[in-house]
Amino acid sequence: MAQNRLDAVINLAKRRGFVFQAGEIYGGSRSAWDYGPLGVALKENIKRQWWKTFVQGRDDMVGLDSSIVLPKAVWNASGHVATFTDPLVECLQCHKRHRQDHLQEAFEAKKGRAAASMEEITCPDCGTTGKWTEPQMFSGLMKTFLGPVDNEAGQEYLRPETAQGIFTNFLNVVTVARKKPPFGIGQVGKAFRNEITPGNFIFRTREFEQMEIEFFVPPADAPEWFDRWVEACWAWFLELGIDEANMRRFDVPEDERAHYSAGTIDFEYRFGFQGSEWGELMGVANRTDFDLLSHSKASGKDLVYFDQATGEKYTPYVIEPSFGLTRSMMAFLVDAYDEEEVPNAKGGTDTRTVLHLDARLAPVKVAVLPLSRNEQLSPLAREIAGRLRAHWAIDFDDAGAIGRRYRRQDEVGTPYCVTVDFDSLEDDAVTVRERDSMQQTRVKVSELEAHLAQGLIGA
Amino acid sequence: MAQNRLDAVINLAKRRGFVFQAGEIYGGSRSAWDYGPLGVALKENIKRQWWKTFVQGRDDMVGLDSSIVLPKAVWNASGHVATFTDPLVECLQCHKRHRQDHLQEAFEAKKGRAAASMEEITCPDCGTTGKWTEPQMFSGLMKTFLGPVDNEAGQEYLRPETAQGIFTNFLNVVTVARKKPPFGIGQVGKAFRNEITPGNFIFRTREFEQMEIEFFVPPADAPEWFDRWVEACWAWFLELGIDEANMRRFDVPEDERAHYSAGTIDFEYRFGFQGSEWGELMGVANRTDFDLLSHSKASGKDLVYFDQATGEKYTPYVIEPSFGLTRSMMAFLVDAYDEEEVPNAKGGTDTRTVLHLDARLAPVKVAVLPLSRNEQLSPLAREIAGRLRAHWAIDFDDAGAIGRRYRRQDEVGTPYCVTVDFDSLEDDAVTVRERDSMQQTRVKVSELEAHLAQGLIGA
Repeated sequence: MAQNRLDAVINLAKRRGFVFQAGEIYGGSRSAWDYGPLGVALKENIKRQWWKTFVQGRDDMVGLDSSIVLPKAVWNASGHVATFTDPLVECLQCHKRHRQDHLQEAFEAKKGRAAASMEEITCPDCGTTGKWTEPQMFSGLMKTFLGPVDNEAGQEYLRPETAQGIFTNFLNVVTVARKKPPFGIGQVGKAFRNEITPGNFIFRTREFEQMEIEFFVPPADAPEWFDRWVEACWAWFLELGIDEANMRRFDVPEDERAHYSAGTIDFEYRFGFQGSEWGELMGVANRTDFDLLSHSKASGKDLVYFDQATGEKYTPYVIEPSFGLTRSMMAFLVDAYDEEEVPNAKGGTDTRTVLHLDARLAPVKVAVLPLSRNEQLSPLAREIAGRLRAHWAIDFDDAGAIGRRYRRQDEVGTPYCVTVDFDSLEDDAVTVRERDSMQQTRVKVSELEAHLAQGLIGA
Repeated sequence: MAQNRLDAVINLAKRRGFVFQAGEIYGGSRSAWDYGPLGVALKENIKRQWWKTFVQGRDDMVGLDSSIVLPKAVWNASGHVATFTDPLVECLQCHKRHRQDHLQEAFEAKKGRAAASMEEITCPDCGTTGKWTEPQMFSGLMKTFLGPVDNEAGQEYLRPETAQGIFTNFLNVVTVARKKPPFGIGQVGKAFRNEITPGNFIFRTREFEQMEIEFFVPPADAPEWFDRWVEACWAWFLELGIDEANMRRFDVPEDERAHYSAGTIDFEYRFGFQGSEWGELMGVANRTDFDLLSHSKASGKDLVYFDQATGEKYTPYVIEPSFGLTRSMMAFLVDAYDEEEVPNAKGGTDTRTVLHLDARLAPVKVAVLPLSRNEQLSPLAREIAGRLRAHWAIDFDDAGAIGRRYRRQDEVGTPYCVTVDFDSLEDDAVTVRERDSMQQTRVKVSELEAHLAQGLIGA
């Protein structure tokens, strides 16, 4: 059931153009997905709510946008060159490489028990069992070359996390924003990891987006701030409509944590994947003073907080709430998806597919629908759509039966449909239909914007 | 004068944290810049206005967000692998490479005449004159490697323009958005070019951001739409406050156009660079059917528009308005910058630095300033700041003399300062100071949001 539901969401996302496969006309890439008209709107709305809540809405936060490509020195200091690696094994028969841990997970998901050794594991490419090389560590960093010569000197890395751009700018921000701990820096942007086995739709890709906060605190206050951030992040998802029953926390054991972390709590969402239903949505980590100390040592700059008033000087600890933006989008889609039985005109019921997205996230806020396509209704409907477009993302649809058009809007989560009918020409009013209740209200055209604005606060 | 003014703007941008050098603690990168708290806000505001005007605000436009890394096949088909190259020459003495055309431009800017030959040109690195290799073509594409093996098979390119992600999704978008020409697809995102000589602050970087539209039209209508888009883009800059005297159009001659263009008009802004004051801000190109035909041929898919109703079938022409986001930001900063003589308390004048940014672009909308830092004013001021933060980007500043704090806000373009003084405790009112007129108005706290909202429409 859960897998069918996930399949249904993925189908909808592809069919309605939330998400397209990157490079599809050339056979498609497994590395990335492209976001279509509705997808880019949903993704931007998630970003915007995140920014409003965690950056603009707080007096202890500022924003940043650092570059994607950064010199090797940064990634040497951060520990990524040395430790951001995965164990790869190669099939001795077909010479394809795979992540050893992913092969083991797949075995366990299928058989319900761990594999005793690699002898038991079959190559997913050629079907040969138990013929594997010893594992070799392979870097997850993606490199590129800058400058006029294509050699080591110009080799830099695409960031695997946005965080390092925050750490390297710590002193700059403290100086210009005149902030003192506790304070944080938020950033939204692309990151790149050379995942060996991308998969599960937009869940694991090589190119993806993060929304990250590095929150700098006096070391003694780190545990308290860690807890606060866990609660604040949890509340954010719920406030935007995620069902708490579909979320859980995972206290990551020491041997599974990233190299910089003294404590991590992952939020997992019940995506409904095959095998394990749950997938990581975000994590809150206590990065301690690891990054600032590492960069201080490597750069020779003193990345500390110095309080001129008190003479106090220390290296702050860092609490990092790190959100997957594309994973959040997937969670909001899965959570909002519903198939409902609704009464039809014949006294029976129909199934309607609906995304119960929070109005702030919905890609289209209002659809304007002339009851039929003709010379009387279309101009008025277009005029109304044009007026509403100054405030919100508007769709205009005059093709097909009105019931079918309502369904089209329901399945992409449009909160309001405004129908212009022949009565509108007489009474200067339109019918406003609300997505979830399907209730219809007659509203004067002159009061339409005010009426809609009530339901679209913050949207 | 113009160069001094540009220097003053760059200074301000660095000093107040609009822009930091990427990887600064490691000696800095010439490839990219990082955007600090004010810079990311200004940049996001420009994006937002662009999206509201050209995507959300039009019924003939939809949005897209395609991936940065795309397979080689895309760049072979687009012509970039073959033609996106620059002529490089190497100094025979020090073996540093330079773009031949940039060396020639620098010579001309300095001497006021073109160099007759490379014999006349001095190496900017070692000072040797006239010792150069023959020019060799060097690709401006940045490569990276995907997948478990680091070889040619996994080599892809970082996009040098966002446009190709639009062309490869043309059929997808036509299908899901049910659009017919004339219609367009807009996209904002990072692009990467291996510029040999990055420079002029954020003007020429290897990592940068674009705001691009590919507008698909019946071939016969291309000239008319080309003109319309030139006018619409021109109007956008003016509407957001750019002085028309600082803009000009350049009809790019055939031999200087990109390989895909049958006509290009560049907008240039008077940045005030050394040598030539003017720099390219954006361009509108008639890409004809070049891209759709190239991708049709290479992919085997028929990237045409087929109208089921009329049976009409054709490859649309494409009008491309392509904006540099970071260049636009630089233009808005330069244009807004002013040093004004204003009366001071002693009967003389002071110089105030002010950014006359449009309120919609200003990174901070309102600053809340308690007259002095104490237990009576600070809590009220913080409460007011907290309330306003639900609507706008707010700064809170309680450090130093009030006049100095006004100046600090003026120079980053904050439209309104709200001062909380001791009278506020009695009369429940605050002083609102407007940036450009410096006029001060006493406003009831209960009416403050409504008062500010009038001046911050759309902000």
